[in-house]
Amino acid sequence: MKTEPHSTAAHGHLVIIGGCEDRQHDKAILSRFVELSGGAHARIVVITAASARADEMWQVYDRAFADIGVRQCQHLHLQSRRDANDEQHIAAITEADGIFMTGGDQKRLLALIGGTALDAEMHTALKLRGACIGGTSAGASAMSGHMLAQGRAELQPEKGAVSLGAGLGFLHKVVIDQHFSERQRLARLLSVVAANPYLQGIGIDEDTALVVERGVGIEVLGEGAVTIVDGRHMATNIAEIHDHMTPELIDVRLHLLPSGSKYRLPDDAHTPERALPPPLLEFLENVTKRNPIS
Amino acid sequence: MKTEPHSTAAHGHLVIIGGCEDRQHDKAILSRFVELSGGAHARIVVITAASARADEMWQVYDRAFADIGVRQCQHLHLQSRRDANDEQHIAAITEADGIFMTGGDQKRLLALIGGTALDAEMHTALKLRGACIGGTSAGASAMSGHMLAQGRAELQPEKGAVSLGAGLGFLHKVVIDQHFSERQRLARLLSVVAANPYLQGIGIDEDTALVVERGVGIEVLGEGAVTIVDGRHMATNIAEIHDHMTPELIDVRLHLLPSGSKYRLPDDAHTPERALPPPLLEFLENVTKRNPIS
Repeated sequence: MKTEPHSTAAHGHLVIIGGCEDRQHDKAILSRFVELSGGAHARIVVITAASARADEMWQVYDRAFADIGVRQCQHLHLQSRRDANDEQHIAAITEADGIFMTGGDQKRLLALIGGTALDAEMHTALKLRGACIGGTSAGASAMSGHMLAQGRAELQPEKGAVSLGAGLGFLHKVVIDQHFSERQRLARLLSVVAANPYLQGIGIDEDTALVVERGVGIEVLGEGAVTIVDGRHMATNIAEIHDHMTPELIDVRLHLLPSGSKYRLPDDAHTPERALPPPLLEFLENVTKRNPIS
Repeated sequence: MKTEPHSTAAHGHLVIIGGCEDRQHDKAILSRFVELSGGAHARIVVITAASARADEMWQVYDRAFADIGVRQCQHLHLQSRRDANDEQHIAAITEADGIFMTGGDQKRLLALIGGTALDAEMHTALKLRGACIGGTSAGASAMSGHMLAQGRAELQPEKGAVSLGAGLGFLHKVVIDQHFSERQRLARLLSVVAANPYLQGIGIDEDTALVVERGVGIEVLGEGAVTIVDGRHMATNIAEIHDHMTPELIDVRLHLLPSGSKYRLPDDAHTPERALPPPLLEFLENVTKRNPIS
């Protein structure tokens, strides 16, 4: 029952949205999600499991996707892990060209679908069929292997302020935060990176998306910017201080990618419009990596 | 009429305060300012020229310094540039062990004293006599050669969002912002650094001070932290974009120095408690530099 991937989605895309994407006016980000899923003929599935108000969420996206011209849009209403192992639900993912995860609470989303057959089928959709997976707010944070589960947004970074959980693992070695500038979450993201320099922090503003084309490159869309915080070169005293204290952080690397930024991995076939800044190379390799089905 | 410098102040200190320093309870920062000025016997001068409500300001600091035990505290009430060239006022600076600049508007402060005989005498006090110069909020921003004059604190850095002016020049190659975490001013400081990578940005939190001992080292005191933003290695498109647009910024270096951080320049005579992190070396050299009287 596998369908042929649309040519535009051959590599599989992630559309990682910082929340509050426009759903009523230009719908620029949702339109791009649809386009990357194959256009108006794409079969879109909406997963509302992050939200306790699933039906309301569905109505919002049902209307928005219909406005964009999508003809086949389906609500996957998952209320239990049993639902996420149910054959009919899995079949919906198998048939989908685009899978969209709404906002809510990423812990709830993972508690319902993490490690289920539906989770595995989403990986197959992305990696083998080149489907497009979109997620906004909680649905964005859920995409990485290490997931920002919860944390206070303090004025300064704090040891122990943030706890991580296991996310869906569509991309690795990163942690994703959303509503980033609007909710002033840099200190929170620095708290994660200070304690986990293995992870590069990605902060996505509202109505802004980081689009990842697997194996190819990234692009920033929408009204805001994407902030990347890289602590791998950092020196810090975080191991020696107590919880709730502010760590010393020396040499954190910060990148700000405004909307319109577009970077491709270097390859033989394409001459990119502009050279990839070297400090972004490893970030790009990480997020565009074609991780195998696990 | 030159007085001998107190031994503790032999190098000249700057106490650069991010605003809202405690004036009623522990008065930790003001106490350190007094200590670095020579203790209870120090002659303290308070410059309120940044503020349109000079008398109110004076009353606040008169009381606070009296509580700390200062016996000779004098209000330098400057209402015009003529006042700042007046012999009696200059004599007060000549006699002072500690000079404190209150908050208000740094543009007002510079308009009144920038380039006057009083300004020159403050440099003499710091550099030849080893006096201590403190400043809070506007009084902090005014200390650097390039002064953050005014600017919007937008969610993202913006080209043209901030304008600089000429400050007092007690330290160079930096720009100072205050109320830093509390007013969420990182984007504003990045706006400055993006357009002026020659300058390292210093963001000082409220009730927090960066203490600079000329030729020796720095220390962070108080309740918050000092953030340093270094754009010298940065790649950016800011020259190509229009005003009000968000620039791309790649590889900005960020340092967070919590209260209690203490760094000395390497020298032969002292073995520092801990090694200076190499990325801070140039920052330390800049801010502790014994700039000549100009």
